[in-house]
Amino acid sequence: MNAKPEPTASDVAAWWGTAVSRMEPNVIELRGHPVQDLIGTTSLTEMIWLMLRGDRPTAGQARLLEAALVAAVDHGPHAPSIAIARMAATCGVGLNNAVATGVNVLGDNHGGAGEQCLALLDDICGRAAVTGSVESAAAEVLAAFRAHTPYVPGFGHRFHQRDPRRDPLLSLVDRAVADGVVAGRHLAAALAVEQSLRTRDGRSVPMNIDGATAVIYGELGFPPPLARGLFVLSRSVGILAHAWEETQQGRRNKGPIPPGILPAYLSQ
Amino acid sequence: MNAKPEPTASDVAAWWGTAVSRMEPNVIELRGHPVQDLIGTTSLTEMIWLMLRGDRPTAGQARLLEAALVAAVDHGPHAPSIAIARMAATCGVGLNNAVATGVNVLGDNHGGAGEQCLALLDDICGRAAVTGSVESAAAEVLAAFRAHTPYVPGFGHRFHQRDPRRDPLLSLVDRAVADGVVAGRHLAAALAVEQSLRTRDGRSVPMNIDGATAVIYGELGFPPPLARGLFVLSRSVGILAHAWEETQQGRRNKGPIPPGILPAYLSQ
Amino acid sequence: MNAKPEPTASDVAAWWGTAVSRMEPNVIELRGHPVQDLIGTTSLTEMIWLMLRGDRPTAGQARLLEAALVAAVDHGPHAPSIAIARMAATCGVGLNNAVATGVNVLGDNHGGAGEQCLALLDDICGRAAVTGSVESAAAEVLAAFRAHTPYVPGFGHRFHQRDPRRDPLLSLVDRAVADGVVAGRHLAAALAVEQSLRTRDGRSVPMNIDGATAVIYGELGFPPPLARGLFVLSRSVGILAHAWEETQQGRRNKGPIPPGILPAYLSQ
Amino acid sequence: MNAKPEPTASDVAAWWGTAVSRMEPNVIELRGHPVQDLIGTTSLTEMIWLMLRGDRPTAGQARLLEAALVAAVDHGPHAPSIAIARMAATCGVGLNNAVATGVNVLGDNHGGAGEQCLALLDDICGRAAVTGSVESAAAEVLAAFRAHTPYVPGFGHRFHQRDPRRDPLLSLVDRAVADGVVAGRHLAAALAVEQSLRTRDGRSVPMNIDGATAVIYGELGFPPPLARGLFVLSRSVGILAHAWEETQQGRRNKGPIPPGILPAYLSQ
Repeated sequence: MNAKPEPTASDVAAWWGTAVSRMEPNVIELRGHPVQDLIGTTSLTEMIWLMLRGDRPTAGQARLLEAALVAAVDHGPHAPSIAIARMAATCGVGLNNAVATGVNVLGDNHGGAGEQCLALLDDICGRAAVTGSVESAAAEVLAAFRAHTPYVPGFGHRFHQRDPRRDPLLSLVDRAVADGVVAGRHLAAALAVEQSLRTRDGRSVPMNIDGATAVIYGELGFPPPLARGLFVLSRSVGILAHAWEETQQGRRNKGPIPPGILPAYLSQ
Repeated sequence: MNAKPEPTASDVAAWWGTAVSRMEPNVIELRGHPVQDLIGTTSLTEMIWLMLRGDRPTAGQARLLEAALVAAVDHGPHAPSIAIARMAATCGVGLNNAVATGVNVLGDNHGGAGEQCLALLDDICGRAAVTGSVESAAAEVLAAFRAHTPYVPGFGHRFHQRDPRRDPLLSLVDRAVADGVVAGRHLAAALAVEQSLRTRDGRSVPMNIDGATAVIYGELGFPPPLARGLFVLSRSVGILAHAWEETQQGRRNKGPIPPGILPAYLSQ
Repeated sequence: MNAKPEPTASDVAAWWGTAVSRMEPNVIELRGHPVQDLIGTTSLTEMIWLMLRGDRPTAGQARLLEAALVAAVDHGPHAPSIAIARMAATCGVGLNNAVATGVNVLGDNHGGAGEQCLALLDDICGRAAVTGSVESAAAEVLAAFRAHTPYVPGFGHRFHQRDPRRDPLLSLVDRAVADGVVAGRHLAAALAVEQSLRTRDGRSVPMNIDGATAVIYGELGFPPPLARGLFVLSRSVGILAHAWEETQQGRRNKGPIPPGILPAYLSQ
Repeated sequence: MNAKPEPTASDVAAWWGTAVSRMEPNVIELRGHPVQDLIGTTSLTEMIWLMLRGDRPTAGQARLLEAALVAAVDHGPHAPSIAIARMAATCGVGLNNAVATGVNVLGDNHGGAGEQCLALLDDICGRAAVTGSVESAAAEVLAAFRAHTPYVPGFGHRFHQRDPRRDPLLSLVDRAVADGVVAGRHLAAALAVEQSLRTRDGRSVPMNIDGATAVIYGELGFPPPLARGLFVLSRSVGILAHAWEETQQGRRNKGPIPPGILPAYLSQ
């Protein structure tokens, strides 16, 4: 370390280098656009696209992205993220802390299925591009996947036999394919997976919200980690709404169950 | 506690009672709307309003809310929330954790100015409704406020002499007043405050992003804590964009300054 | 900003200046002590004192601090911090994230009572030092306090009529006073408060864990915010133990109540 | 779901069943011990063991665990966890939030090396138990490991050529082996790894803090995830000390670098 020259202020500036935004006194540019040109002309959904990717979506792309973001905002207090945010809101922390507490648990099991599903669909699309058959690509990928785990991320739901968000999302994708907005490859991959999945007793295992949004994110060209990132933005809306409602209900230090029920004591 | 009857399952259900959403197998209703009716018909901004308030915004209301949300998405890595999320993203946690880590610090000093400013504007509006003079109401409230602190939340900026987000946001409010979308009372209150503020050496102290968005949230009828809540949703977009960019830059365990500079050691 | 000289590397080093620790290649000093001199010679509790204050505790001081830290490690899954950490642990995040999620909610209502109680005791001690009467100081401070809120932090418990942690903690303080380890002023202040508190129907309102630990932290000279800080360290132990147990129980995405009970839907 | 009987209060109690603690009015039992029997008789380190494992450590076991916990409390503001907590503390959030923000980033890259190293050592110990040769077991495991990544967790340090915490920790383990407190198998495994590691230019790659503490946690019988869990408890001490010092330095909204240096703007 001795031989290295002492870093300068410009090394320090470079350490925090970013293409996302440029700040100077009286100047705010986001992805190269002065902020004053964006305010009033750009929707929140277009802004999300711009900030993550650096370019602007077409109207058709923005419409698909918006539908996916709207669809996943909430799934009620049975979802740990929602319950946790509500409990946090009663503990005397800021609303920002309550939201962060909920967002923090959107992990591999809770908010990660979209990311995992998109990786799976990307894999199928990649193979199908080579072999020409999405069905055989889906079969290959599924076989490899199911060797490790009984779950296929994005398909089936422990609560809904048929997730009511599947059909409206997929029909928007259908229309976007028809309109030439997207290519339809991820949709085909997901339908091939859905086609081949059956429970042991023969019931179908339809796509769930994570699968249907993964189709959209994949069609739009988002990489898998951003499927989780976008879900985080979407679910933050529901988390905030629930945390705020809880605040207004006025409990302090809300536990998970009514005070009159004591957790069972398990002998070790 | 002995005399109380054992809680039943319906007490447990009531403990988690909510008007935000209703979940049953194959049913998802958000604020009374089946989710399938919202997908593809509702913008993300309208969804935020619906989830927080239970009704739907008019087009004019949604336009104002959207502008406020777009304006505050990012202020670069000097903002602790952004820097923290970028560092978090290099530590081997999920993107959800990186976002949560950034959102968590949008506290009273960093994300709370909008909430504080809105409380101040509400106070001025309330007094002006009684006395008829927004100028004297502003003077009263400011005097009380400045007895405690030199900062007036929502006015002045340590980095910008004139925040470039002020003018486009206020001109949207102006137009909304002209169109009868909002009443203009919070705008008048904020302008009265701005008019009366001067630095010691006589320079003006213009409204900043927190002030201009507080005007919008106030005009739209949001209570002060939701000024922070809405800022959280907005800034989450920038936090995610920066965390994702950092992930792609590939550092591991990024510290705040280049490794070649050692923090100064202070004698106790 | 133009006239200011460009910051140098040493300004950057100063920005992160600290008296807590000194790091150089092959050197780690904590509060001036080479880490190798601390390992094997210093207890974890002594380390906590050293890191927070810069000096080392006497054996008697360490004993009191340790008792307070041990007493507050856990209060079961009804405590939101514990329930939240357990739920987090099922969501596919790291154990660090699960612990952080729980710690994050130790806010003003949940983990702040010790801090608030210590501030109250400090206030009483300060007044009693002037007037000579701890009883009248306690009466004054309580009257001011209860004008705002029915709760007196550190006294009474919604679950225990008599908190089982009170007596053993206070008897350790008693002994430490007898041994000249601490002065006994915070103990006297807290007992004066306890003496004067009665519920409406005449029952006593004994000190709870937050009150008894506030006595100890006050006797040892910790400022009020560190009463919360020390509680955070203590409760982290229970949070980790519960998160780990939950991990081993194997649930995924644990909600707050069994899946068979649906949260009640409240009309708006 | 229709056929299932409605859950009862005892199902709800079972949902939160735990062997860690039992709470009833006026009763707190931790791992079967009334809390009043633990206060004043049990050290914080013994309490950590008890809460995580259900039994009490011997004096020799507690000594080793304590040394590991003490050794890792802090590594200065270059560590993201420390820098983040310091920045958080300036944003107007509680000290609990500042600590949680720091703890949250002790992820796979930052706080996970101990866990990964312990898994590696467990693997070597398991193979050596079969073949009788720790050297060949180490060689096998290392070969498999290094096929994926150039890093071997627990060995080497980007800042220290020789981590000053290695020798005092390992000499405590040596002594514990001599005293029959632990068996020495993880120590042997780690030394075998260390022996076989060399940088490309021939320098040794000595064990670092994560390696030396993984040896201790392994000798004591902790499973790998608790290596991270215990590190979290240890590092929380340094995180709190730094957050508290920063609070007292009085900055508001501290960014990562002095305000006079602007992050570099990268063209996309």
